[in-house]
Amino acid sequence: MSQNPANGSLDTLERLADVIDQRRAGDPDKSYVARLFQKGGDAILKKVGEEATELVMAAKDADRQKIVYETADLWFHSMLALAQHGIRPAEVLAELERREGLSGLEEFALRKLKLREEGGTP
Amino acid sequence: MSQNPANGSLDTLERLADVIDQRRAGDPDKSYVARLFQKGGDAILKKVGEEATELVMAAKDADRQKIVYETADLWFHSMLALAQHGIRPAEVLAELERREGLSGLEEFALRKLKLREEGGTP
Amino acid sequence: MSQNPANGSLDTLERLADVIDQRRAGDPDKSYVARLFQKGGDAILKKVGEEATELVMAAKDADRQKIVYETADLWFHSMLALAQHGIRPAEVLAELERREGLSGLEEFALRKLKLREEGGTP
Amino acid sequence: MSQNPANGSLDTLERLADVIDQRRAGDPDKSYVARLFQKGGDAILKKVGEEATELVMAAKDADRQKIVYETADLWFHSMLALAQHGIRPAEVLAELERREGLSGLEEFALRKLKLREEGGTP
Repeated sequence: MSQNPANGSLDTLERLADVIDQRRAGDPDKSYVARLFQKGGDAILKKVGEEATELVMAAKDADRQKIVYETADLWFHSMLALAQHGIRPAEVLAELERREGLSGLEEFALRKLKLREEGGTP
Repeated sequence: MSQNPANGSLDTLERLADVIDQRRAGDPDKSYVARLFQKGGDAILKKVGEEATELVMAAKDADRQKIVYETADLWFHSMLALAQHGIRPAEVLAELERREGLSGLEEFALRKLKLREEGGTP
Repeated sequence: MSQNPANGSLDTLERLADVIDQRRAGDPDKSYVARLFQKGGDAILKKVGEEATELVMAAKDADRQKIVYETADLWFHSMLALAQHGIRPAEVLAELERREGLSGLEEFALRKLKLREEGGTP
Repeated sequence: MSQNPANGSLDTLERLADVIDQRRAGDPDKSYVARLFQKGGDAILKKVGEEATELVMAAKDADRQKIVYETADLWFHSMLALAQHGIRPAEVLAELERREGLSGLEEFALRKLKLREEGGTP
């Protein structure tokens, strides 16, 4: 269901979103995704918080393989959160492209960061 | 360094990774990315934790637009963590594809989840 | 509203809760607490997520002084979340005492942890 | 081992710290605390991130009882992180008292927050 055959990351994420949509409708006794959806939104969001913490720890350890693995876990579980709200990854990629294209957005974020720094180290 | 140099760098995440690599080498006074890298790894990881919390809150509010925005923020800042360790998003996508293909992995995660549930609600 | 008004409000957390209640009603231009409450619940909860991440990083660095500081930050901001819902720290301490006393609770948590482990490393 | 018999929160937390120290030396097959310490620092820190996320969700639900319960969980697991580094809760309470007493600290945090706001909503 990808919109652009040449866009690899869009391809991968959209296909993964399709798989998630198929599995969430499946048997909670046979599918992790179906079971997590059965448990509900909080179970999915708890995993998002958990995986973010695990990515932070993997990065502190500078463990390259674990960083890849935990980032995949984090993106996967945030895609479950997207699925629960009927949002396709293409929308997130579009938002990321919008930012990349508009250098003004970087200037805005930079201005915020400088203001924070003037306030001293948090 | 995009995957598809011949077709104009159509891959969104790889192109974003290129932009990040260009900007981190830039002037910290003009680029948000350069400034965050100058502040160091902890500043980047703090943002990962922050954005995960914001995604959780946006999902609790069922605010569709905010969910897209906060997921983009979360993915963007986790890509900064990847960049700091010289990891390309293609590696994360490959890990996600590997999981999607191997249904055995879902069975493994399902078994874990069932065992957790037997232990009762946390 | 401290628990020990007769002995000069010696209870640290109850006294801190009193200070928070006084300041939240104050001038947002002069008080950090008043300003955070003015910004609203999400601003407080975002700080909870942020400070938890900072505690995780301080512990990974085994930086003793930073661990004390970040734990104080985490407890302080979770007390702001309590205050917003009219909850006194004494209720949290009572819950902690209840757990300490009931060894059955530890057995319950242990059983859950063992079941998780049977499922393999998360 | 409390330093001040009239200070209820210090009492409770110091006693809980004693219980934690006793149990961590116990049998990992019989004690949740011993088992978590056996699994190591990352297992404890992962729980800190998990419980922070659960507090955020309970607060979004405005579920009073859950907020108390999740805050207790968060404080308990951050006390395990303290214990692992040989830090007593009295040190955290002393840091909180120091802040409460020094209004200058609130002014500092306020100045930072104002600077952030000038940068606009993140």
